[in-house]
Amino acid sequence: MGQADYIAPMTTAKNSTVIRILGVDSALRCTGFGLIDTDGQQYRAVDCGVIRTSPKEPMSECLRRLAGGVRELAEGYAPDVVALEGGFFFKNAKTAMVLGMARGAVVAALTELRLPIYEYAPRRVKQAVCGYGNAGKEQVALLVAQILKIPVADVKDDATDALALAICHAQTRFTVQGLRLPDPL
Amino acid sequence: MGQADYIAPMTTAKNSTVIRILGVDSALRCTGFGLIDTDGQQYRAVDCGVIRTSPKEPMSECLRRLAGGVRELAEGYAPDVVALEGGFFFKNAKTAMVLGMARGAVVAALTELRLPIYEYAPRRVKQAVCGYGNAGKEQVALLVAQILKIPVADVKDDATDALALAICHAQTRFTVQGLRLPDPL
Repeated sequence: MGQADYIAPMTTAKNSTVIRILGVDSALRCTGFGLIDTDGQQYRAVDCGVIRTSPKEPMSECLRRLAGGVRELAEGYAPDVVALEGGFFFKNAKTAMVLGMARGAVVAALTELRLPIYEYAPRRVKQAVCGYGNAGKEQVALLVAQILKIPVADVKDDATDALALAICHAQTRFTVQGLRLPDPL
Repeated sequence: MGQADYIAPMTTAKNSTVIRILGVDSALRCTGFGLIDTDGQQYRAVDCGVIRTSPKEPMSECLRRLAGGVRELAEGYAPDVVALEGGFFFKNAKTAMVLGMARGAVVAALTELRLPIYEYAPRRVKQAVCGYGNAGKEQVALLVAQILKIPVADVKDDATDALALAICHAQTRFTVQGLRLPDPL
């Protein structure tokens, strides 16, 4: 996100009514993350980016890096809760297995830090951010930037969904006192 | 395995030509493990058992327990290498995703301890232990007991495959100087 003034240092959210949400869009090669602070009214971008792994490295090393990466983020930024992409369907069982391994590494690492994890399906995230479930990637980026009051160029491609996940959780959490909140994973 | 005399304390293999292998047959609900010491000639059972999780607990807690369980085993018994069940195919993508998450939690935890992990398909394991790939579960248990020189009743049902995995890795590792060894995961 560069060095713009909306980037918070590695601290927790200061106000007790403000929660810090870590959105994670996990995959083996490219796991997007997005951190926001919000009280349900105001949204503030804290950080966003990508944990990348190389196809040249063995699978086990990629999973180690992924687990270590999200653990570092969680320890550094101390989020209150995690929003994870989930609830999708696959035709291909092999793809599902590989994505499952990435998700398992991420979920185990974050749960060891006692972080509650909520899953949101892509459609629901788009619905929350854009108002309808079939919104395109550019549209999601545009709305994410608008909600967070940052230039759309600062919403990194691979982190767009992660930031949208965090916003989706915030909207679910603060709407009708979280009555529509799903069970944690 | 009870308190029989072939159970080693929580130590490393003493002889430098002897390697300690941890076999892991991972699944969300019931992950079998089996530890053996071997120099390629003699096999000794060190421990075997199961890491169980409850269907009443959330998925995230099961994955945390799984990662914590294999980490504890690896730290306590200090194996040199891990043999993991792999190379299977699924028709059902949802089953593949759940099993993938369990495997991801296990692989990330063990790789963080710098343990090399080798995958073996069920057919190859049966081939190594029984001499043919279509052997039944009882037959595998019988041969595992025979190789480890322990009563077959001591080969716990859910740990049979894990012990067989460890034996399969040993046979692959010590045969023709490991020329048939697959790439680590």
